[in-house]
Amino acid sequence: MFTNEQENEYLSKTKKSNELFARSKSLFPGGVSHNIRNFPPYPFFTLKAKKAYLYDVDNNRYTDYWMGHWALILGHSPSFIQPYLIEQIKNGTLFGTVNSISVDLAEIIKKTMPQAQKLRFCSTGSEATMYAIRLARAFTSKKIVAKIIGGWHGFNSTLLQSVNYPFELDEGRGLVEEQFIESIPFNDLERSLKILESIKDDLACIIVEPILAGAGCILPQDDYLKGLQEFAQKNNALFILDEIVTGFRVSLNGAMSNYKIDPDIFTLGKIAGGGFPIGIVCGKDEILDIADTSRNDKQTVCEIGGGTFSANPMTMTAGYYTIQYLRQNTQVYENLGNLGQYLRTELSKTFSDFGVEVEITGTESLFMIHFLNDRVKQIRSAVDVALSNKEKLRRYNFFLLSNFNIFFLPLKMGAISLAHTKENINELITATEKILQSGILK
Amino acid sequence: MFTNEQENEYLSKTKKSNELFARSKSLFPGGVSHNIRNFPPYPFFTLKAKKAYLYDVDNNRYTDYWMGHWALILGHSPSFIQPYLIEQIKNGTLFGTVNSISVDLAEIIKKTMPQAQKLRFCSTGSEATMYAIRLARAFTSKKIVAKIIGGWHGFNSTLLQSVNYPFELDEGRGLVEEQFIESIPFNDLERSLKILESIKDDLACIIVEPILAGAGCILPQDDYLKGLQEFAQKNNALFILDEIVTGFRVSLNGAMSNYKIDPDIFTLGKIAGGGFPIGIVCGKDEILDIADTSRNDKQTVCEIGGGTFSANPMTMTAGYYTIQYLRQNTQVYENLGNLGQYLRTELSKTFSDFGVEVEITGTESLFMIHFLNDRVKQIRSAVDVALSNKEKLRRYNFFLLSNFNIFFLPLKMGAISLAHTKENINELITATEKILQSGILK
Repeated sequence: MFTNEQENEYLSKTKKSNELFARSKSLFPGGVSHNIRNFPPYPFFTLKAKKAYLYDVDNNRYTDYWMGHWALILGHSPSFIQPYLIEQIKNGTLFGTVNSISVDLAEIIKKTMPQAQKLRFCSTGSEATMYAIRLARAFTSKKIVAKIIGGWHGFNSTLLQSVNYPFELDEGRGLVEEQFIESIPFNDLERSLKILESIKDDLACIIVEPILAGAGCILPQDDYLKGLQEFAQKNNALFILDEIVTGFRVSLNGAMSNYKIDPDIFTLGKIAGGGFPIGIVCGKDEILDIADTSRNDKQTVCEIGGGTFSANPMTMTAGYYTIQYLRQNTQVYENLGNLGQYLRTELSKTFSDFGVEVEITGTESLFMIHFLNDRVKQIRSAVDVALSNKEKLRRYNFFLLSNFNIFFLPLKMGAISLAHTKENINELITATEKILQSGILK
Repeated sequence: MFTNEQENEYLSKTKKSNELFARSKSLFPGGVSHNIRNFPPYPFFTLKAKKAYLYDVDNNRYTDYWMGHWALILGHSPSFIQPYLIEQIKNGTLFGTVNSISVDLAEIIKKTMPQAQKLRFCSTGSEATMYAIRLARAFTSKKIVAKIIGGWHGFNSTLLQSVNYPFELDEGRGLVEEQFIESIPFNDLERSLKILESIKDDLACIIVEPILAGAGCILPQDDYLKGLQEFAQKNNALFILDEIVTGFRVSLNGAMSNYKIDPDIFTLGKIAGGGFPIGIVCGKDEILDIADTSRNDKQTVCEIGGGTFSANPMTMTAGYYTIQYLRQNTQVYENLGNLGQYLRTELSKTFSDFGVEVEITGTESLFMIHFLNDRVKQIRSAVDVALSNKEKLRRYNFFLLSNFNIFFLPLKMGAISLAHTKENINELITATEKILQSGILK
């Protein structure tokens, strides 16, 4: 799959990681706790992470474009957040009770995203989307959930459908909810509406990421999102926007502000927890209020989490000071946007100079390089990404890692953070030139 | 519900909490992120937590028997773990990649509980049990999950069934999986086997807590657990032990060691994360291995998590040093067991002296006080707990809180930690005597 030279380069500099992965394989299925973190020949093991860099157990330093599943917009372990976290370590990491810092975090989110009339904190994105669809089913008394082909909303059993190519096959075994899930094609409003029309009587909700993230950094076209929202409104279904990746990422106020969408429910995660476990369900009062167990009985209430770790003071502290920083330093988004634009433009030119056909998708601080081929001339859906030349992308990602210490989680979208500099981007461009010169991407 | 005196006592000392709860109610459904954290008239807001104490925003100090949903066996923010956590804050809280501390944690767990032939780290108990049943369904190619009436396995949509009294009603709205769930009565092997027999052809697994925790600290009798395990073995179903509460709590090696059970899959959480978000799926190689996506294709693999925050270095560090401490200081369990026994014995005597009929259930560091009545003479199942005199328990819990600064999450099991002293227990006993003297529990 890779050239011997690159593979030898990687093997020779990551010997301790190699040993650790051998131990890992006897402990974890596939050697990992999250399947995507395994990549051939084996993943390096991170020892520490600072600013824009990961440091592995063999003392290699990598420029990181994965950034903790895109969660770390301020960079790794930002020094201006650390004192608050250290103080919280001393004052308790898990109260198991209500606490004032969760009120502060909820209020600052509501101030930033007024569409969050009410909120619920939980501990992961998978939990947040699970609660969102449970609320929608409860509120509408209907059952079917429409999701996007290739849409990724975490590991909950309901939404783990049509995530990976080939999309029409089940996402593995052990799932039982397929009869209540319908999948629609991103950016194809006509076909989407036709499918939705056929299930509208039992349609509880449509859930969609404003930008398909896991599926390959695919932006919404024209009025696709608005078209879905209108259909939902007309048919007594809820429109759920999954902003776990995009919230506080593509703007301070979320993608819903960029695309002028007013969701009934939206979910947050990642950045909102400042590097600590979080998921958040947000939405309109009348919907969230059906989760109020203090004024409903078992037959009218919708039971959503929580969980032991919900609203824990470490996550609340990290989230609060992260969002406070983003609010107080609004030039962050302008700077990140400019840097992202520079990266996309210059990298496109570089590939173009060498006659290698790519499309670099993205907006603001998000981007992804897609190698085009005879089948795929543009990236508009998860199918396009799946059928693009992933083998080239894998080779490109690995060459960057093996020879230039630049890390992308192979085949995944990249993200830049406040800690990334123009120099980092220029290094990526120079490395790309050298890789193109080698001819392995021809 | 409470006497005016106690309510006034509580209101007068928790004024800031009262104000915060007013803000909270406009932010969160029911004013909370976890329903059980709300209790009348309103919950106090924790500011910090140290050792066996919670300190609220009004400067009250409470002796804590809730201990972070029973997760904090070393007490709140133990000083001997703090340096490792502070170091990790500086070295990154979320790598998003494989890391060596997760290998260390997995290895120390495997050394302590060899039944964990392989493991997967996720971020919450709700996720761990969701993955456990997904694995069971995938491994057996069957669909039905049998659970215990009153059994609590978190908020995932599959297992949120027959949790709260009346158990035969759905746990609220928005759930759709009821046709694949069957509930069986704890400690009634004959009736349980009869129900299981009727569904054995499509029975994927039986999932059970060795000690019903959320349902009210109910111990298993005789060979109930073994009987279930045997039935599963005979009928090609898996036996799943949910040790999220009991793991590292009732002994170093888990309840499965106390009760001599050999589960196919078991789940851990709470203590294993040392106060940080965690869930762990553990089990036999041949079962966990079907989650190995590196050697299976989409149609044979079982997709389990992970998630963004899985195996994050903060949780891994807190978990590792917590378990290391428990392994190196094995007298912890003897000490906690003795203290628990003292508490149960002396408190029983106290109630008995005043002629108030209670049963104090529990083992080791876990305990719960149940007020008996004409309907309930002993506590053997979740139904017994539901029909016991909960109104008295609520009054007792609130009196302890209002007048003696002793905190139980109302109606929930209590836990002691390494930070609790005999003096703490004696204060609980003295407070109980005074409450009994007041006559409100007659």
